Order: sequence, then structure tokens, then C-alpha cells
Amino acid sequence: MTPAAPAYRRLSVEERRSQLLDAALSLFAHRVPEDVSLDDVAEAAGVSRPLVYRYFPGGKQQLYEAALRSAAEELRHCFDEPHTGPLLPRLARALDRYLTFVARHDAGFSALLQGGSVVETSRTTAIVDGVRRAAAEHIYSHLGVAAPGSRLRMTVRMWITAVEAASLIWLDEDKQPPAEELRDWLVEQFVAVLTVTAARDPETADVVRAALATRT
Amino acid sequence: MTPAAPAYRRLSVEERRSQLLDAALSLFAHRVPEDVSLDDVAEAAGVSRPLVYRYFPGGKQQLYEAALRSAAEELRHCFDEPHTGPLLPRLARALDRYLTFVARHDAGFSALLQGGSVVETSRTTAIVDGVRRAAAEHIYSHLGVAAPGSRLRMTVRMWITAVEAASLIWLDEDKQPPAEELRDWLVEQFVAVLTVTAARDPETADVVRAALATRT
Repeated sequence: MTPAAPAYRRLSVEERRSQLLDAALSLFAHRVPEDVSLDDVAEAAGVSRPLVYRYFPGGKQQLYEAALRSAAEELRHCFDEPHTGPLLPRLARALDRYLTFVARHDAGFSALLQGGSVVETSRTTAIVDGVRRAAAEHIYSHLGVAAPGSRLRMTVRMWITAVEAASLIWLDEDKQPPAEELRDWLVEQFVAVLTVTAARDPETADVVRAALATRT
Repeated sequence: MTPAAPAYRRLSVEERRSQLLDAALSLFAHRVPEDVSLDDVAEAAGVSRPLVYRYFPGGKQQLYEAALRSAAEELRHCFDEPHTGPLLPRLARALDRYLTFVARHDAGFSALLQGGSVVETSRTTAIVDGVRRAAAEHIYSHLGVAAPGSRLRMTVRMWITAVEAASLIWLDEDKQPPAEELRDWLVEQFVAVLTVTAARDPETADVVRAALATRT
């Protein structure tokens, strides 16, 4: 007697939605959004096209934005790091998770940040900007600064943008240098640009002194 | 006897085109592209709307791209700097011209780089990327490097992106700090990130040594 085929389990609305988003995200990871159709998503998820439309009546644009929101949520979690122990290893651990995220989403990450995509809108830009702001807030909070001054804010935001640029080049160059090396290099750049600002700005100088004090 | 009104001088095609682009650029400098109509451009240039359409039959999108190309050309000229004298003052002079450009184009510059604009397309992205590449090539050439390795390239491209981010924040914060201070700060960051990379990469170490040797 052959074993019975596993019973088809009916997914809940949330499970189904999340299954479709996962399928979409894995397609966006290997192809630019323009080259992914709803048929592709249906096929990858093993469901019918009408079912994809039932969940995303706005079609590809809606699916793309929902997938992007889900990825942005995941990316925010990369920044979660306990406020204990020396500062730079905390940053290194967050960067490790971030680079793992970048490597997994690959083409989708590039397409989104490089712009010029047909599915890019002011809404997708707002989602990405929200993640950038969240990253900056995490950094201020780890630096122990409640109300960062303009010099410190500019430095942190410049570094975050530089990290994004590094990620895109990294993907473009087949993930070279290795993630651990890139991570350490980015941490060193963080210290270097903060140090430059510290020479111009007493607030940043205090922050850098405190950060160095917690270095092992 | 009142003096005769100045005779209406018939502009050449090139002059007229350039007059319309100037009018468009000055409008884009104070409003986001979405809020500039062809009527506004016609009014600012003191010509009829049909005349604007005669020069730009593709309408606003075509006018915007042409204005962008003209601005990109102007921006490339900011990077022109003789290959003589100490390196860092050369970089400072190019940054002075760049920040003057940024201040003059203001809202148009922000709208373009922040993306999400309805008039942004893969073509506008390509124009901006061309300017970024030109900036990087200028830096390599001033550093005296014909074929930069991947670490040096990544460092230079990260710094260029960070400069863009700084420009946007600077416009957002009513051009504070003053341009001279921002310029010096950016030069210091350039030295700092190159120095960090030099510790990891012998090629960059050679470049930094040579650059420091020409410092007065």
C-alpha cells in the first residue's frame, strides 16, 4: 500500500498572502521587477493566476509594494541589537545581518536602490526612506544621543548612504570582498568619519569619546 | 521723443533652445518637476506655449530630460581642474564649484536625486550615473591611478555617494553649515576613508602616500 498523499492543507489568508510574498521576493531576488510577471509568481507559489489577483487586485505594482514592505520589515529587524557590551561589535553584528539580507535579496535590492525601475513610485521611495531613518535612529540610540545635532546627523546619514553604495557595488562585484571583510571595513569607516566630525563638533567629540570608552 | 523699444532680435534655434532650457532650469530650481507646467516655462521665457512645444514636441518629459542633460554638462565642468599643485586644494576647488551648482539648482537637484519623481525614468537615472562615473574618473586621474583596483574604486564611489547625501541634507537644512565649512569637512572625510582603505589595501596605501607627499 502506497502512503497517502499528504492532505492538502488549506492556508489561512495570512499564510497564503505571506506565501505569495515569499514567492515574489525570491523572484525579485534574481530578476529585475520588470522581468517578473504575475504568472511567474503564481507558478513559483504553485497557485493559479486568479488566486494571485484575488490577494493583490492591484496587480504587480501592489504585489511589488507589499513584497517591499515585507522586506523592509525584515530589514528593520536586522538593526535590532541589545544595548549592551562594546559599541563597535554591536555595529558589526547589525552589519552582518544587513549584508546577509542584501545577499539574499540581491537583484531586488539593487533594482530598488538604483531607481529608474518602472515599478518605483513615491510610495516605494517612502518605504526605503523609512528604513534609512530607522537605521539612523538605531545608531543614535546606540550612541546614547537622544537629540543628535546637525553635524552628527549629517555624518550618520552620509555613512548610511555610503553603506548602501558599498552594498550595491558588492553585489555587482560578486560579493567581493567577503562579507566579514566588508563589514569590518565599514565599521572602520564609521569610526573614521565620526572622528573627522569630532574635530569640528564638540557634541560628536563627546559621543566618540564615550564610544571609544566602551571599546574592549 | 521716447527712445524706441529695443528691436526684437530673432534668436537662432540654438539660442532659443538654450533660453527655454534656462527658463526650465530656473523653475525646476524652486519647484519640484511635478509642479512645473509647460505654460510656466513659456511664461518664464516670455514666449508662447506652441513655441515651447515646437522645440520640445515630447512635452514636459522631453524638456525635463533636455534640461537635465544641460545641467549634467554644467556639473561635469565643475570637475575640470588642472593637474598641478597639491591634491587636496584641487579637490577643495572642485567641491566649491560643485556646491555652488547644488545651491543654484536647489529643488531640482533634490527632486532628481531623491527619486520617486513622476518624470524620473531609466534615462534620467542614466544621465545622473554618467555624472557620478565622470566624478570618479576625475578623482582617479588626479590620484594618478590609471586602473584603480576594486578597494580603491569602492572607497571613491562610497565617498561620492556620501557627498551627494551631504548635499541633499545641506539643501534641506538651509545650506548649513556654510559651504566653505562643508567643503573642508568633505575633504577631511575623503582623506579619512582613503586612509582606512590604505590600511587594508597596498594600492590605496601607495596612492595615499603619494597624495600626502604633494600636500603643502
